[in-house]
Amino acid sequence: MENIFPDLPGAVDRGAKERLLDQRGMLVWFTGLSGSGKSTLATALERELHSRGYLTILLDGDNIRSGINSNLGFSPEDRLENVRRIAEVAKLFVKCGVIAIAAFISPTEEIRQIPKRIVGPENYREIYVSTPLEVCEERDVKGLYKKARSGQIAEFTGISAPFEEPGAADIRLDTSRSSIDESIDLILTTLGFTVSR
Amino acid sequence: MENIFPDLPGAVDRGAKERLLDQRGMLVWFTGLSGSGKSTLATALERELHSRGYLTILLDGDNIRSGINSNLGFSPEDRLENVRRIAEVAKLFVKCGVIAIAAFISPTEEIRQIPKRIVGPENYREIYVSTPLEVCEERDVKGLYKKARSGQIAEFTGISAPFEEPGAADIRLDTSRSSIDESIDLILTTLGFTVSR
Repeated sequence: MENIFPDLPGAVDRGAKERLLDQRGMLVWFTGLSGSGKSTLATALERELHSRGYLTILLDGDNIRSGINSNLGFSPEDRLENVRRIAEVAKLFVKCGVIAIAAFISPTEEIRQIPKRIVGPENYREIYVSTPLEVCEERDVKGLYKKARSGQIAEFTGISAPFEEPGAADIRLDTSRSSIDESIDLILTTLGFTVSR
Repeated sequence: MENIFPDLPGAVDRGAKERLLDQRGMLVWFTGLSGSGKSTLATALERELHSRGYLTILLDGDNIRSGINSNLGFSPEDRLENVRRIAEVAKLFVKCGVIAIAAFISPTEEIRQIPKRIVGPENYREIYVSTPLEVCEERDVKGLYKKARSGQIAEFTGISAPFEEPGAADIRLDTSRSSIDESIDLILTTLGFTVSR
């Protein structure tokens, strides 16, 4: 830092920002197959937290692949770099006291270790959306499973590329068995928020 | 987005977050030579805004080069990519209603156009810290000018690489002529905040 006046205090720290916002910064990471309901739950969580007065940021393919990661492809190296940058962005938000909510397939333990390591385990909560492949494929909202089955998409998670079940997720949720409201209540409770429906 | 329930509302938008915070998101970009006082002013601005209850994020070499841009060097391409990523990060903060404050030499008009274009001119304010080279070199807080003069650092802005004066900065400030308090007052006024010292 170009500290030309060495006695001046430095940047405002995380604690001061958390006190200003009256909340704790954290990263809530949704992992699961395409179509499992990650983005739906992440969005519902953001809306619920916002309605309670919490400041949140939703990180998903929509704002990440079109922005900071617009110059990345889908090679193995680029997939790791994709998650690394998402995690570094999340870290900046966590340090700003914001609740970052991320929804990415993140199919392997190696990949999920990246955000956990970068933001620190104490700031990281992992939600495994465990909706069965059959249900995800039946939903096929983007038509991606059809393309993967017909060979138009190579290395598609769940079809032609593996999804390693998370061993240490804080919550496991199957959106074919739980409603969104039920799921959000469980998430809020696990994250330490009160549930009052 | 994996929108499996198409009738559900989407993510919380910028306006709702700005109302929650009672502030407008923006990017305040400090440009100027090494040693000009960019980081000092950026830090002082963050502290002043925070003390007034505004949520800010300070983006500088300290948290950017060690995080999101840790895999970039100093080639011409990497310098552009460095600024592109900073701008994309700032855009996410602006959309979250946060006041992002960035301090980078950003020596050319081409480079400064990147954040302006990415966050949008209506969200971008540019502060040119115009402290003369002689003063910056005399301060030489990091000993970089000495190394540049002796040839240990190549392409050092102001010595062996050009600094193009910004043509359209919102404010121009010379820290060898204005005190920090005076500078911050001018910045606050220009950004639309009231000054009450």
